[in-house]
Amino acid sequence: MTIYEKPFDQAEYKRRVADTRRRMRDAGLDLIICQDPANMCWLTGFNGWSFYVPQCVVVHVDEDWPVWFGRAQDAKCAHVTTDLPDRQIVSFSERLVQHKTEHPYDELAELIRSRGWGKARIGVEMDAHYYTARCHAHLVMGLPEASFSNNGDLVNWARLVKSEAELALMREAGRICTSAMNRAIATMKPGVPQNQVIAEIYHAQTIGVPGIGGDYAAICPLMPVGEGTSTPHLTWSDAPLPTNALTMIEIAGSRRGYHAPLTRTVHLGKPPAGIGDVAKAVVEGVDAGLATARPGNTAEAVEAAWQAVLRRHGLKKESRVGYSIGLSYPPDWGERTVSLRPGDGTELQAGMCFHIQAGLWLQDWGVAISESFAVTPSGGERLCDVARELIVID
Amino acid sequence: MTIYEKPFDQAEYKRRVADTRRRMRDAGLDLIICQDPANMCWLTGFNGWSFYVPQCVVVHVDEDWPVWFGRAQDAKCAHVTTDLPDRQIVSFSERLVQHKTEHPYDELAELIRSRGWGKARIGVEMDAHYYTARCHAHLVMGLPEASFSNNGDLVNWARLVKSEAELALMREAGRICTSAMNRAIATMKPGVPQNQVIAEIYHAQTIGVPGIGGDYAAICPLMPVGEGTSTPHLTWSDAPLPTNALTMIEIAGSRRGYHAPLTRTVHLGKPPAGIGDVAKAVVEGVDAGLATARPGNTAEAVEAAWQAVLRRHGLKKESRVGYSIGLSYPPDWGERTVSLRPGDGTELQAGMCFHIQAGLWLQDWGVAISESFAVTPSGGERLCDVARELIVID
Repeated sequence: MTIYEKPFDQAEYKRRVADTRRRMRDAGLDLIICQDPANMCWLTGFNGWSFYVPQCVVVHVDEDWPVWFGRAQDAKCAHVTTDLPDRQIVSFSERLVQHKTEHPYDELAELIRSRGWGKARIGVEMDAHYYTARCHAHLVMGLPEASFSNNGDLVNWARLVKSEAELALMREAGRICTSAMNRAIATMKPGVPQNQVIAEIYHAQTIGVPGIGGDYAAICPLMPVGEGTSTPHLTWSDAPLPTNALTMIEIAGSRRGYHAPLTRTVHLGKPPAGIGDVAKAVVEGVDAGLATARPGNTAEAVEAAWQAVLRRHGLKKESRVGYSIGLSYPPDWGERTVSLRPGDGTELQAGMCFHIQAGLWLQDWGVAISESFAVTPSGGERLCDVARELIVID
Repeated sequence: MTIYEKPFDQAEYKRRVADTRRRMRDAGLDLIICQDPANMCWLTGFNGWSFYVPQCVVVHVDEDWPVWFGRAQDAKCAHVTTDLPDRQIVSFSERLVQHKTEHPYDELAELIRSRGWGKARIGVEMDAHYYTARCHAHLVMGLPEASFSNNGDLVNWARLVKSEAELALMREAGRICTSAMNRAIATMKPGVPQNQVIAEIYHAQTIGVPGIGGDYAAICPLMPVGEGTSTPHLTWSDAPLPTNALTMIEIAGSRRGYHAPLTRTVHLGKPPAGIGDVAKAVVEGVDAGLATARPGNTAEAVEAAWQAVLRRHGLKKESRVGYSIGLSYPPDWGERTVSLRPGDGTELQAGMCFHIQAGLWLQDWGVAISESFAVTPSGGERLCDVARELIVID
């Protein structure tokens, strides 16, 4: 159907499934169950906000087409947004939605048996956000002859290196994010209600830039204020922005589900000297990280380059400094694969994308000035273009 | 701290914990692990977008204060948004975030043992969205002497009847939703890009109504178009709205996390007669449901009243017609407890709130005209106030 234009051609989906099947063969898996909505979309194009009920894409190592399994009313969404043949779209009985004793995955087990896969070596996404303990328990119970293992986020890893078509969307997401962040900054001043700033952000995220509309982001806009800047995930209230305070904004632009996140720190009123110094060190650290983000270097080398700059300034970040990004659904815009942190020896390749979340959350305040970037032979290519400094609104 | 004003006084949180402990005693549970972000917030006030990492609130049947357990950088968020004493806020080691073999819940098990609860009868939320198979596996492995069971969404059920303070927020959420829906309708016309309508919705949801700011909704705005109206969870594109087509909008207003959802169906251009007739039947069915939504009647009686009207018009809805609503976080604004459907004999009480999602998704198109309501002695009190008919923009 043409009403829901797919972001990629059929060949790209076929390559993805073929690559996934190769990885399954290497991992000794016959079948994988993918409940991560980003994995479902990446493999088939499936796109709808139905991930609050059990649903998944099932890939068999010997089959060209995955199976979509989900709620009956969402099966039509699979018909509209994917190229899957009809017999590969299978829905469960409506009465199983939030049923106390039975579960949709009882019928998933039945489906798997009916296709002759009851004795398969099955890899599940043990830590995917929506693969609940109960999903797993019912699936295991329903397939007593299968063997189960954690597939180690096999499809998430397959998503790590982006195609040219994906990189184009990542750059568009970056442009949307740039626009939204600049609009937030233009709106912020003492006395403006916090939710007014957020309303402008949402509008800008969605309206996008000329010719490029925005999608919903996997995380809502975050805007801690004052002492709240010492923790990263606070949202907003309708209280007015204070006359003299530090604030932080973390948002993403999303283009067809592909995310470019960005954080900026804003001081309302004249900032104390210390904050500007930390901000300078953070930007310098990000530059060191970006310069290191070349094919052949490791993820931990990027972190080490950043940390070396911080150390020179007498600072230290305890948490990881970044993570891979791409196609994402709530609740997270990270891909749950590579982290920029000590011990992650993943070798960078051109086309990987990361958010270097260069933030310091100290005892009573924090500063974060991040960048989303794509790995290229000449280092990290920044996807957004917003002033790289402590932003002062005085 | 005062920068993050709590929506309820301390006495209300104390009542909630006391009620939860009573329910635990009745269920024979010593300890419950609550990972549902709405349960975490309802019990303690904790409020931040950190639910993409393992975190929970732990309630012991003999203890006045729950324990918050989560990531170190989010512990400060717990200090800022809750009244929990310092020793009840416990964080896990940063290196465990997305670690391949270890898991934050290894340290949760340690914490539980260290408090002398290693042999407890523990109830977990087996089907809470973020309680993954891996969370459960690590917890069980770390507590070999404990006994585990599904707590059957014990806290979700405790949330079912709203306090007066909660009902006030639900009504405010309804006013926000009304404003957002009316703004969407005012924006829609043939040729307007879909994402422009959504941008206006987001802005209106967040700006709220005078004196009442909006929060993020647990589901993004849904707006299927044309044949897309035959499935409920499609989102938008940047294509222009067509000249002659059916569209559906489903959104919520959220006030401090409390949700009032609403669906309206809009026809661009002159509608075929059949659609208007179905719309009239749907509204008549909702009225029958609302009239039945009185204390003492059952959830299934509300559905039966609605279905009887549909039947008279030769129509039938296969899926459940509604679900309880209240405090919610992504990915769902339902409470996962009562469903308005056959077999749900829950007796209604004043203060329960529901979304009667009166939608028919037929083969090629659909119509939905829903209401959020609170149960009162005189029937369902509608929380929103938007034209109750097929909306025609010609």
